[in-house]
Amino acid sequence: MTISIRTQVGILGAGPAGLQLAHLLQRAGIDSVVIDGRSREDIEGTVKAGILEAPAVEVLVDTDVVTRDYVETMRHDGIEFHFDGHAHRFDFPALTGKGVYLYPQHEVLKDQIKARVAAGVTPLFEHLADKVVDGSNGPMIVGKNAQGEAFEISADFVIGADGSMSIAREYVTGNKFSGMAREYPFGWYGILVEAPPSSEELIYSRSEEGFVLISTRDEHIQRMYFQCDPNMDVNAVTDEQIWDKLQAGVSTHELKRGPIFRKDVLKFRSYVHDSLRKNKVFLMGDAAHTVPPTGAKGLNLAFSDVLWLNRALREYYRSGSEQFLDSYQEDALKRIWKATNYSYMMTTMLHIAPDATDFDKKRQVADLYSHTESLAGQTYIAEGYVGWDYSADDWR
Amino acid sequence: MTISIRTQVGILGAGPAGLQLAHLLQRAGIDSVVIDGRSREDIEGTVKAGILEAPAVEVLVDTDVVTRDYVETMRHDGIEFHFDGHAHRFDFPALTGKGVYLYPQHEVLKDQIKARVAAGVTPLFEHLADKVVDGSNGPMIVGKNAQGEAFEISADFVIGADGSMSIAREYVTGNKFSGMAREYPFGWYGILVEAPPSSEELIYSRSEEGFVLISTRDEHIQRMYFQCDPNMDVNAVTDEQIWDKLQAGVSTHELKRGPIFRKDVLKFRSYVHDSLRKNKVFLMGDAAHTVPPTGAKGLNLAFSDVLWLNRALREYYRSGSEQFLDSYQEDALKRIWKATNYSYMMTTMLHIAPDATDFDKKRQVADLYSHTESLAGQTYIAEGYVGWDYSADDWR
Repeated sequence: MTISIRTQVGILGAGPAGLQLAHLLQRAGIDSVVIDGRSREDIEGTVKAGILEAPAVEVLVDTDVVTRDYVETMRHDGIEFHFDGHAHRFDFPALTGKGVYLYPQHEVLKDQIKARVAAGVTPLFEHLADKVVDGSNGPMIVGKNAQGEAFEISADFVIGADGSMSIAREYVTGNKFSGMAREYPFGWYGILVEAPPSSEELIYSRSEEGFVLISTRDEHIQRMYFQCDPNMDVNAVTDEQIWDKLQAGVSTHELKRGPIFRKDVLKFRSYVHDSLRKNKVFLMGDAAHTVPPTGAKGLNLAFSDVLWLNRALREYYRSGSEQFLDSYQEDALKRIWKATNYSYMMTTMLHIAPDATDFDKKRQVADLYSHTESLAGQTYIAEGYVGWDYSADDWR
Repeated sequence: MTISIRTQVGILGAGPAGLQLAHLLQRAGIDSVVIDGRSREDIEGTVKAGILEAPAVEVLVDTDVVTRDYVETMRHDGIEFHFDGHAHRFDFPALTGKGVYLYPQHEVLKDQIKARVAAGVTPLFEHLADKVVDGSNGPMIVGKNAQGEAFEISADFVIGADGSMSIAREYVTGNKFSGMAREYPFGWYGILVEAPPSSEELIYSRSEEGFVLISTRDEHIQRMYFQCDPNMDVNAVTDEQIWDKLQAGVSTHELKRGPIFRKDVLKFRSYVHDSLRKNKVFLMGDAAHTVPPTGAKGLNLAFSDVLWLNRALREYYRSGSEQFLDSYQEDALKRIWKATNYSYMMTTMLHIAPDATDFDKKRQVADLYSHTESLAGQTYIAEGYVGWDYSADDWR
């Protein structure tokens, strides 16, 4: 027996992008079904860092996913760059009139799922999609649920918001890598530690040892990273060595130490897929592009794709016009490449490649001084960090 | 027979840096001798492009090398970036309150030499230095003049302003390369052409073919460049191919053609010497550092060195204090690395490396859009182009 579902828009992936698109479409009276192979508990329980740009937060507040009062408790008005024994603070409101929000991704997801449930359209969790195929009446998602029952979701459109291992991308690109990529010769060694915050604001550091990021989760749990070989064994360093590497990046004060209860090595790369659409199947978020974590553009960039697709689908169901569906790829790629460039800039500004020459290192420090000594240079970096305004702004 | 000369400051090289230092020292009552192996005719006749920053022009005007009225005739208030079929103008006065000056280097030299002659201290042309040695009473420059007569100049200080093949650097660094360098996998193919200007302002272009620069000399002679293999044969392209390559960089209008009467291939690299001093011998200008020509920092950066050394020598002769002599290297290196970084940025933003991937090219275009779409990004680029204020400003 196969469970058959018919909807206007089938959305693969109950991540922040898929849930947000479903939410916006519903507000325009468009029916959608979100499916995800994971359970709600898995999704809500996978702790992930998250820095939301001001424009992304505006969308969440404007569309009643969260309240203004709530998000304002998470607002951060600056970050620090530490380099060459020097500390520089970027004052975001002074430079850009905006701030950023330390709103962890799993908390965003909880709030988005709550909004879906409140609207009476709980995502279909534990529905593992197998593939996207051409049905007799538009594209179709086929798969199995947790009970082993086959399902098929037939839709006018299918949206692949199913991350970097996207199965919708297999439909769009024919199962081969069809994009542009850049690898980085370093990764991040990350820890979770029980300790009070070492710094009120995030510290991005470039020392002779490489990159360090001092982040925070809450009053009790901190997240910190240091640059590492992307292939290193997570157990290859002692806690003492971890603290030494982190402390090497912070010249202004002693880090507050505590028990380290999670360690992981993050690999990353940049990639952008050439093709974000085939027939009535569209890709967005990590299914379409990935950026390295420096600068925290990933989630925010996915929200930009959501807004372009929301506009395109609203216009289609309102007037029958496919113009914005047709321009989606070109529209979305502008910000995708801009964010890709920004993430690349932040990454190369602050990390030291293993083959960096003395010239490269001196020039890199001069680049950090040049930007931070100039109001324009500071503003340019801050603008990208707090987030450029979205171009498709008809989400209300 | 050996001609013996005694002076306070012996200056190697009658280039813009050496002449300017002699001029400033004289205004403070400090005696110097400038020598150069070339003849005055050679120096004044070697046609060289030149874009002077606003702060460098202030020094020349303030110290009566040129008149304000004269330099203002050479003022340029903007440049254009062409990329991706798009043209963007940087409005320098709007962005920075300043302009730049298309004041060719050989014209600067003529004006500086005129000022030296008027002051009664003509540089010793056709005095070819052989080496700098330790004399019994301070450092000594030894060499031969055009008549084959040996000379020795004994001084309190010797300043190496003798360019990238500096013999003073042999004294300072022991005749080995002792710096940090970066090679570029491309050069410039330059032409001089008899034609009216194709553009009121300079055009810096990045197209799929690579970099193009449309510059100007005067109403009748134009200077243009396109990116090439640094090892290419200057005769390997026809005039028609040259025009095609130049035109590929300019999307907005047809270039005005005319007879090409000079063609050359320019190689370039970045380097900064570690050590700018040994005992009483100091290096400045190209003897100490070289930048690629994109952004025209070379001559302007030499002027910064001049001001630091002028301050140091004035303080020494005024009070006997060596503090600014001792801090010269550290003081000068700040701007040297900043200008090195700026020149690197302008070069890598606008040239296409032979091994650039599709990702690299797309990101590069996104970088150009990101900067030009942001007032802060535009300002950051413009500030570097018109020139940061000099830190040592006691030249009057």
